[in-house]
Amino acid sequence: MEALMKAVVYDGPGQKSWRDVPEPTITDPRDAIVKVDTVTICGTDLHILAGDVPEVQPGRILGHEAVGTVVDVGAGVTGLSRGDRVLASCISACGVCRYCRSGRYGQCLGGGGWILGHRVDGVQAQYARLPFADLSTYRLPANVTDETAVMLADILPTAYEVGVLNGQVRPGDTVVVVGAGPIGLAAILTARLYSPAHLVAVDRAERRLQAAKQFGADVAVDAGEDPREAVQALTGGLGADVVMEAVGTPQAFETCTTLVRPGGRVANIGVHGKSAVLHLEELWSRNVTITTGLVDTYSTPDLLGMLAAGQLDVGHMITHRFALDDFMAAYDAFTRPAETGALKVVLSQD
Amino acid sequence: MEALMKAVVYDGPGQKSWRDVPEPTITDPRDAIVKVDTVTICGTDLHILAGDVPEVQPGRILGHEAVGTVVDVGAGVTGLSRGDRVLASCISACGVCRYCRSGRYGQCLGGGGWILGHRVDGVQAQYARLPFADLSTYRLPANVTDETAVMLADILPTAYEVGVLNGQVRPGDTVVVVGAGPIGLAAILTARLYSPAHLVAVDRAERRLQAAKQFGADVAVDAGEDPREAVQALTGGLGADVVMEAVGTPQAFETCTTLVRPGGRVANIGVHGKSAVLHLEELWSRNVTITTGLVDTYSTPDLLGMLAAGQLDVGHMITHRFALDDFMAAYDAFTRPAETGALKVVLSQD
Amino acid sequence: MEALMKAVVYDGPGQKSWRDVPEPTITDPRDAIVKVDTVTICGTDLHILAGDVPEVQPGRILGHEAVGTVVDVGAGVTGLSRGDRVLASCISACGVCRYCRSGRYGQCLGGGGWILGHRVDGVQAQYARLPFADLSTYRLPANVTDETAVMLADILPTAYEVGVLNGQVRPGDTVVVVGAGPIGLAAILTARLYSPAHLVAVDRAERRLQAAKQFGADVAVDAGEDPREAVQALTGGLGADVVMEAVGTPQAFETCTTLVRPGGRVANIGVHGKSAVLHLEELWSRNVTITTGLVDTYSTPDLLGMLAAGQLDVGHMITHRFALDDFMAAYDAFTRPAETGALKVVLSQD
Amino acid sequence: MEALMKAVVYDGPGQKSWRDVPEPTITDPRDAIVKVDTVTICGTDLHILAGDVPEVQPGRILGHEAVGTVVDVGAGVTGLSRGDRVLASCISACGVCRYCRSGRYGQCLGGGGWILGHRVDGVQAQYARLPFADLSTYRLPANVTDETAVMLADILPTAYEVGVLNGQVRPGDTVVVVGAGPIGLAAILTARLYSPAHLVAVDRAERRLQAAKQFGADVAVDAGEDPREAVQALTGGLGADVVMEAVGTPQAFETCTTLVRPGGRVANIGVHGKSAVLHLEELWSRNVTITTGLVDTYSTPDLLGMLAAGQLDVGHMITHRFALDDFMAAYDAFTRPAETGALKVVLSQD
Repeated sequence: MEALMKAVVYDGPGQKSWRDVPEPTITDPRDAIVKVDTVTICGTDLHILAGDVPEVQPGRILGHEAVGTVVDVGAGVTGLSRGDRVLASCISACGVCRYCRSGRYGQCLGGGGWILGHRVDGVQAQYARLPFADLSTYRLPANVTDETAVMLADILPTAYEVGVLNGQVRPGDTVVVVGAGPIGLAAILTARLYSPAHLVAVDRAERRLQAAKQFGADVAVDAGEDPREAVQALTGGLGADVVMEAVGTPQAFETCTTLVRPGGRVANIGVHGKSAVLHLEELWSRNVTITTGLVDTYSTPDLLGMLAAGQLDVGHMITHRFALDDFMAAYDAFTRPAETGALKVVLSQD
Repeated sequence: MEALMKAVVYDGPGQKSWRDVPEPTITDPRDAIVKVDTVTICGTDLHILAGDVPEVQPGRILGHEAVGTVVDVGAGVTGLSRGDRVLASCISACGVCRYCRSGRYGQCLGGGGWILGHRVDGVQAQYARLPFADLSTYRLPANVTDETAVMLADILPTAYEVGVLNGQVRPGDTVVVVGAGPIGLAAILTARLYSPAHLVAVDRAERRLQAAKQFGADVAVDAGEDPREAVQALTGGLGADVVMEAVGTPQAFETCTTLVRPGGRVANIGVHGKSAVLHLEELWSRNVTITTGLVDTYSTPDLLGMLAAGQLDVGHMITHRFALDDFMAAYDAFTRPAETGALKVVLSQD
Repeated sequence: MEALMKAVVYDGPGQKSWRDVPEPTITDPRDAIVKVDTVTICGTDLHILAGDVPEVQPGRILGHEAVGTVVDVGAGVTGLSRGDRVLASCISACGVCRYCRSGRYGQCLGGGGWILGHRVDGVQAQYARLPFADLSTYRLPANVTDETAVMLADILPTAYEVGVLNGQVRPGDTVVVVGAGPIGLAAILTARLYSPAHLVAVDRAERRLQAAKQFGADVAVDAGEDPREAVQALTGGLGADVVMEAVGTPQAFETCTTLVRPGGRVANIGVHGKSAVLHLEELWSRNVTITTGLVDTYSTPDLLGMLAAGQLDVGHMITHRFALDDFMAAYDAFTRPAETGALKVVLSQD
Repeated sequence: MEALMKAVVYDGPGQKSWRDVPEPTITDPRDAIVKVDTVTICGTDLHILAGDVPEVQPGRILGHEAVGTVVDVGAGVTGLSRGDRVLASCISACGVCRYCRSGRYGQCLGGGGWILGHRVDGVQAQYARLPFADLSTYRLPANVTDETAVMLADILPTAYEVGVLNGQVRPGDTVVVVGAGPIGLAAILTARLYSPAHLVAVDRAERRLQAAKQFGADVAVDAGEDPREAVQALTGGLGADVVMEAVGTPQAFETCTTLVRPGGRVANIGVHGKSAVLHLEELWSRNVTITTGLVDTYSTPDLLGMLAAGQLDVGHMITHRFALDDFMAAYDAFTRPAETGALKVVLSQD
């Protein structure tokens, strides 16, 4: 008889429940099964629930950010053992395809990429199956807590790779981050590793601007005002060296392209559902570089090392804590950040 | 009494004439005066004549691509002497500002950049004043002809820097160039330096597609057909590594963003008068890099070395030759390429 | 009862034989077994036979460059099937360690790296076990012959990665390759992909200098003469942009450091048994970059694509052909290149 | 009648004096004359006095690090006016040669490079002539003091460019700096801009190791002990990502090459008078990159911006202060650092 567990199941647009489903089992020699110890909710999960990600089928278990304990491994898994405490990353990687060979795991052609809680069942559950476990999990050192580690499952590598590294932040730069939600705040935190001279946060919510300052921004601009003034004042009228989009709207993206200096970089981190206007009539001669990207998680080992070395203080990212059984309450708090002040909500299993 | 010379004078939208104007004189210690020996017409000159470049004032002498002989130098010019045969580059450079210090001459903040035939009088004349002469001219070796050298004034460095180098063409890549006019052909020619496996040219004109093959494209696609099929066939359905826009229309740009593979680069070379649609809803997760740029001419010495070493065969670029006094006929031929087959038209002074 | 096969067995310094040994079997789920179709001998094999590589134990089957047909795969191998024709690369890769994650397979910490014919039995045999088969083999397209493909097992990626890419050859450069044996010739061939203006080969053997010209060198210098004169003549006295060491002696390395221009690169490809003198009293102020490296084979898929596309003509690399049973004769020819003119000798199994 | 001033004059090995010499005058249109306000002594000045730099002629005024006030400019100087407070950089730049065009000013072929106090008279004087003044000086913002700015004349850009940027320090790296004199300390200070996880200082002097910790090293190792142990303990036995040589002896350089991990970088900053042994028999297969370099000062504007933004605290670098007339006493203190504890000694004119 099949063992049962609880999980957050997507039942079509607007529908989710925390209910009994079968426990996962090994289905490929490269799989591992983990008991989920700590898990969080992503803005992308809300997009799925809104029906914006049609490839997610009803019945799918959501979630792609967790820390767990290995309870079983397939015959082809060589780097993990039962009892290992591991980070379950949002990106899985076959390790063999053209993209995986160059560390571009997010574009995996061999069945990986962003699949958890998307094309296969995810980690908002008591147990989870992790495909390609050797390359998709990271054993955790003792001095990194579950709560801290789970910030590495998605938001830290996303902000760092797609924002900071794609944007090529350099010491002395003026950097603007448009959007101070969890991803924007993680971009501010990790941009600090490159010692910009100025870090400008732009958001509509006063509370998030305050958080941005806590994470390292030295200038906070209400999105209702024109951020160009602040940026031009800091840069002698030239514009910012690097601008990161961390909202996911056409308007935010277009704002970014007006803030960047000639020769500067616009790094898009936001998830977009609509096209934007690209003002090539202004930009064609300005030597601008625009990048997009899904996270690859090539930086996860580096970020984990920096967490263990005490270089990244992510504690302020977590605003709410719940038991696993209170998953619906956690979703509720996360869905209404303007009222709850939620950044990241974390759920733990006893 | 002021000496007179002939020059192409812009008299407002749609108006130009080859007529008497005063000869130029040194007005800054960094100036040089050259007798123009060989000169050409750029698509940008046609944009000016169409009234698309409003900062160009009536009375302005056009032209930013020439080879000439130095007849006078200012007190601050140290690298040139009377009698030197020099390339007059489309970009002038103060050499001191933030951008010039890093070779980004096109963005010069000290009075340089693209100024010739734009903000100061240009080179479609019997004589021309070249500001910042030390950094804006290049002495020519004896084995490089005037006609060959004048291709270095704009189109070769533009195609190479803004297309090939920004696009980061690498050996074995599949590269697409959308638009096979002079700039697109120069992009094909210089992309070959990096040994792509496939070089696909897209254009509407059969004659230009034939020229593209002569310059090194191995695949030519009529823009009326869907170039995606050809690109997908060459790349196993993945898309091109590098796509260059060499037309300057929203449609051409948008085509480029549909042809690029995940992780690939779109290098915009075209001069745009309108905004384009950027399909972020498709591109946000595809790790695409989009670059724009005005030429900086940092590569001009390298390209000149390669011309002198016989590595670049630009002879086929020149389709029509005129005497300087026939400037109006040259414009006429260049304005109707579909009928005349014009790529570059070259004018020489006896 | 154990099946037997023939193999080249190292029996201690100076001793080798082609004799019966047990056929290999799967010992790890990531293994594959191949029938060896085509195989070659490397200069490194001669170093082993000379006793210079003490970690190679008597009884070891030599060889790390082959093309074979898959006859068996372990349970953890996902990308290969029986009957696949594959390249067996000199480098094996666990795919999971810090170095493998960044494509630095040669430095694999998980049991890979250069192990074939070194720390585990190699491919100079009728059958071979290939560890970590998914990442250590490459399926071959039909239009690439065995003979051509076997050049990709070591010398092409070694020359390309450790010489050309580490040396950062760029269009228009003056490049010097010291040593025109198989690796030096492969460096010349692959450097051509970046369109240097000049490619200077330095060697003592007239025959090898002739081969260098066939592979793309435009200048050949007898090592008995001072190559500085030739290089200075080509570079206006400045020195070469890139110099590659492809010999493996202190003297050749020191020559390289005298040929490079300020700001240039010295890429060491040679295998060294002794230390060299580094003239820091000259070099400290000259902004020189010196690189060393074991091949990583990250470029093998790219090179294979270029071979398939007809971009690399390696046919002239193979000077001698033997049947597998004539392995001792093949070694004899390869050991006396001055007399036999051997570059690469290839053995094939019927 | 010629005006006289005081200056430090080199009178041959071991000989110097603070004595009357003629005041400098404009000799080239690109010159500026400054009144020296603040000046310092470099270790290189001691090398000159030891007779190690034979191209320095007796009668030469020493010094290449100063802040001054412009009192006269040549006709070709466009960016400076009388009364401007400027940094006089150790590197002068013609701005036109191949190297200057790419920001490699230290290798200037047009008469610049390191010339002050070397090939032309220097700045240890009441007045100084600064050749190529537009590119060799930097106007100072009001909030940067003379004392702070003079650290930018040589040691900060040298340590940053030749150590930190050549060494490619990245967030999370383990970095070793061998030698904790002024240059080594500046390397530690500027390496911090890239957020290494560990910064190990190696020196013989306990006082300098304490200073290293003050500047940001987290581990200090007495050079008498084996630094390999400390480095291996921090890196799981792998070795350091980046090792910088800031001593200038063969032994220190050779130590560096034993501390670096496979794939790591050794950045030589030290000035060397002798050759070192390069253990290619160990290094050939370890994918190591070794760089050397004279400072180019391309980073000076960036560093100045960071100083002005309060990102670099160089105050602790200055241990001794003197009036200009006490130049001999300043040299005395700087020559005996073991006794005086001198790092940088600064002299100011009232």
